[in-house]
Amino acid sequence: MHKVAVSSWATSTFTKGSKMSLFELACEPSVQLIRESGVSAKEIDAVLFSSCATDQYSSAIISEMLGIYPRISYRVDNLCNSGTNAVASAFAIIASGLCNTVLVVGAEKADSPGNKLVWDVSRGSFMFPVHWAAIFAKAHMRKYGTTEEQMAMVSVKNHKNAAKNDHALFRKEVTLQEVMNSKKIASPIKLLDCSASCEGASAILLVSEEKARSLDNPVFIKGIGQQTTSASFAKATPDLTTIEAARRAAHTAFEMSHTKLSQIDVAELHDAFTILEILGYEDLGFAKKGEGGKFVDQEQIVINPRGGIIGCGHPVGATGVAQVAEIASQLAGKAGKRQVKNCKTGLVHNLAAAGSSASVIVMGV
Amino acid sequence: MHKVAVSSWATSTFTKGSKMSLFELACEPSVQLIRESGVSAKEIDAVLFSSCATDQYSSAIISEMLGIYPRISYRVDNLCNSGTNAVASAFAIIASGLCNTVLVVGAEKADSPGNKLVWDVSRGSFMFPVHWAAIFAKAHMRKYGTTEEQMAMVSVKNHKNAAKNDHALFRKEVTLQEVMNSKKIASPIKLLDCSASCEGASAILLVSEEKARSLDNPVFIKGIGQQTTSASFAKATPDLTTIEAARRAAHTAFEMSHTKLSQIDVAELHDAFTILEILGYEDLGFAKKGEGGKFVDQEQIVINPRGGIIGCGHPVGATGVAQVAEIASQLAGKAGKRQVKNCKTGLVHNLAAAGSSASVIVMGV
Repeated sequence: MHKVAVSSWATSTFTKGSKMSLFELACEPSVQLIRESGVSAKEIDAVLFSSCATDQYSSAIISEMLGIYPRISYRVDNLCNSGTNAVASAFAIIASGLCNTVLVVGAEKADSPGNKLVWDVSRGSFMFPVHWAAIFAKAHMRKYGTTEEQMAMVSVKNHKNAAKNDHALFRKEVTLQEVMNSKKIASPIKLLDCSASCEGASAILLVSEEKARSLDNPVFIKGIGQQTTSASFAKATPDLTTIEAARRAAHTAFEMSHTKLSQIDVAELHDAFTILEILGYEDLGFAKKGEGGKFVDQEQIVINPRGGIIGCGHPVGATGVAQVAEIASQLAGKAGKRQVKNCKTGLVHNLAAAGSSASVIVMGV
Repeated sequence: MHKVAVSSWATSTFTKGSKMSLFELACEPSVQLIRESGVSAKEIDAVLFSSCATDQYSSAIISEMLGIYPRISYRVDNLCNSGTNAVASAFAIIASGLCNTVLVVGAEKADSPGNKLVWDVSRGSFMFPVHWAAIFAKAHMRKYGTTEEQMAMVSVKNHKNAAKNDHALFRKEVTLQEVMNSKKIASPIKLLDCSASCEGASAILLVSEEKARSLDNPVFIKGIGQQTTSASFAKATPDLTTIEAARRAAHTAFEMSHTKLSQIDVAELHDAFTILEILGYEDLGFAKKGEGGKFVDQEQIVINPRGGIIGCGHPVGATGVAQVAEIASQLAGKAGKRQVKNCKTGLVHNLAAAGSSASVIVMGV
């Protein structure tokens, strides 16, 4: 297998109501990436577009707008997992030798059709993601004594990180009290336990090892694990305190990358709701089962340095790409004022639809 | 690069108005494939779904309906090219070593949003594919003296082949006179020069070389070429008598497969309109430039043995998968009453949106 590096990345400012079209959104970070990467549009031989938007032929449209003539080009669509699926697809295209230079672009408008889970009859009328997040939270509280304060601390931490990220939707710290006093959405989940849908885009360039040799600090994708356990909530996981898909994806990614958990210095965890970051600690193995709530205070690993999904906002198809972009920038030592010191190995954890599918990507220098 | 084989395939009967949902359509050939392949649902470690339908999380829904727990799963969307793009993506997933057994399913309802090209302002109010097909046909007639009768002969040939295909939408031969007398849609294109939108599904199983060893007659994917030149018609090709994307895709596929044109025994060519098959003869190199019209009569290579898109119907996202399924069945010697004798090497040629993107896949035993 050819090795694959992430050589460039750019993420737009996540906002609400910019009035940009999906395609303008997608082009914004892509143009920046091409300008800053030193790679010309002509060298890019594949373009994969990640989005839940229903526009037809969107990857070809974006390619034409960017002046790229890709050999391989298509859209990848899989709800919140779309971006990490597109990264896996791009990885495979390079690792197989089909292409050398793949642009992965994720973009979403705030009114994305990916925001509702209307297709799952097993959810009844509880079609918004917050409904199943509440069920996970209650189960974890009941079984392990996890507290609303512990969940709220995830929000405090991620908002604090987002305050250092100029591209985040929310750039203001929040206090524990503010989270606890915020409006109840679906008990025990409060407004500040939730991420917000928004619009935004992120682009990364994946290149073959040969191309990566000319880079100063190549960041390699070392392991990719993905798992789908179901589409419906009813069959997603046998135990409501574990995201089974994430556990299995992590196992695959660690095995493929020959990486130990203890080597991870920095991680992007899927925190569309605070409880999901706590489950993530456990599913990935950072915390023992049931001890995720206490793990929020730890300081060995930096988790969600860009502010996570709670701080940055959640433009569904862009999120997975932005997560990979963040870890690449951290490992390359180019994360500016939110740079994590001495990080060499990082991880991305992403989920879709009540954790019925998950991705874990291990990256390293 | 690991070698990749097509080990099983199944295509449903293409129809109009079956009242099956998109997901029922997708499951029909998949269930048949799993039943007949000897591969259990549990062995399948990736599911890629090809469709222009706008349903969210569709590949996960299909996986759950089929009892598959895929590691990698997403939908691939790229208009008429979706199916061949999904095959390329599946090929890369196996060739890179990420998975061993990938199910590619293509399905489409007759009212697919992929049937109109509404997003291309460069087409003005000519948003139906027939409009640009007419422009290609007129250009070829003017420059090379290609006749309406030659185009009509493509329809006669493909309908004749479809008459032997129980899964085709049209199972009746047509005469040259019937084609010539059929209703003018956009001069010089007549009704019987056109394919029809319809509903249908096709599934193929791709496996690693190791898995393929246990097969009787493994059919390998030897070369994949894809090219996007634009999204808009205005920029698709500099010469209206050539599909530039197909020419380049063919070059890549032949180079990768170390195959000569003269080795091709059987081919599936994209004939959504008769003129496209004639352009295909030339773009692939079967006929010299300008001589595609005369090439319709040749008997060395069997082209569109299942009846092509004109005979089978055109369920957009399923077409590319069905094309690969047909060539695999021919090369494996399992094509029943339409079996091409002694065929060892085959080719799939697929186009999207006025030939602004193209795929060429070379397969062999």
